[in-house]
Amino acid sequence: MSGGAPVDFYFEFSSPYGYIASQLVDEVSGRIGREMRWRPFLLGPIFKATGQAPLVDIPLKGDYSRRDFERSARYHGVKLAMPPKFPVGTVAAVRAFYWVHDLDAAQARRLAKSLYAAYFVHGRDIGAPEVVVEIAGSEGIDTAALQAALADAVVKERVKGEVDQAMARGVFGSPYFVVDGEPFWGCDRIPMLEEWVARGGW
Amino acid sequence: MSGGAPVDFYFEFSSPYGYIASQLVDEVSGRIGREMRWRPFLLGPIFKATGQAPLVDIPLKGDYSRRDFERSARYHGVKLAMPPKFPVGTVAAVRAFYWVHDLDAAQARRLAKSLYAAYFVHGRDIGAPEVVVEIAGSEGIDTAALQAALADAVVKERVKGEVDQAMARGVFGSPYFVVDGEPFWGCDRIPMLEEWVARGGW
Repeated sequence: MSGGAPVDFYFEFSSPYGYIASQLVDEVSGRIGREMRWRPFLLGPIFKATGQAPLVDIPLKGDYSRRDFERSARYHGVKLAMPPKFPVGTVAAVRAFYWVHDLDAAQARRLAKSLYAAYFVHGRDIGAPEVVVEIAGSEGIDTAALQAALADAVVKERVKGEVDQAMARGVFGSPYFVVDGEPFWGCDRIPMLEEWVARGGW
Repeated sequence: MSGGAPVDFYFEFSSPYGYIASQLVDEVSGRIGREMRWRPFLLGPIFKATGQAPLVDIPLKGDYSRRDFERSARYHGVKLAMPPKFPVGTVAAVRAFYWVHDLDAAQARRLAKSLYAAYFVHGRDIGAPEVVVEIAGSEGIDTAALQAALADAVVKERVKGEVDQAMARGVFGSPYFVVDGEPFWGCDRIPMLEEWVARGGW
């Protein structure tokens, strides 16, 4: 990685477009010479605060989206099978991520990839805390310590702070990128983001 | 134009992304060898029916969009100056389009381009019927006949039918393309649409 400030990569674990983006960002990072800072957040509280509904619950747009999830994955060469339970609440997943992150950022990224694969490839219910703990265990993470962390007030506050900060920055969807203060929403904005970095804006 | 069925190009005259698309579709049409069928519609009744709000009225998303309109235009090399009055109701513009269209489809397309330029380049209020009539006049259209057409029950029904049909097809945003039954929403889906046609889907 050379060059400027990292790119903030915001994503929701229950978001198919966030998952697709997670499969693309390593290459994006290489092309633009910027580190990607993975920042899972929760869309639920942001939707509540802004009066939005989950994509698939919106008439017409919901049908379009269901069709587009798998079409977009195939377009990008990403393996995706829509999970039987969708969407799910991902607060346990996000808490696990930040707890691991504050000990070992690289391991948190590996955990994020495993959680996404469990959900969007293997159809597991990552909304269930015990599934999150099991997946973390298979990544070599201390499951007893994680289990305690999921109920820890400090970890809860850590996640709340992340979500509040995301909302304060204007994040309203997943994926959402911020580079040099410039926001880009959606997988389909990645080409524009890359050109923005290459040209230093326009 | 060679090849298969035309692409339906749905757009709302008050939509910046629809305007940007209108500046791109001629080249898209050439590249994919398909005719573009211009189909203005009204987002208002569709938003009402599906419980959606105009983009710029949605918290966070509205701010993002305002920033993104001009950024996207510059990205695509399209001249855009956000009009002082935005959004506006475009029922007169859509009625004018279809009335002209049923007499001369090529002229209707020229009128659509003039209306878009009047609004998104020159900041004129194309929500006002007299402005629509004046612009049509400068395109050589019979303004007295158009004025009568704007109040004609048959023309009103024609437009209502178009909007109903768009909604029945699932159109919920602008621009929206349908090619060989496959829907694509947004300017940023044009590359995917082109690949879809080239590969015959995937």
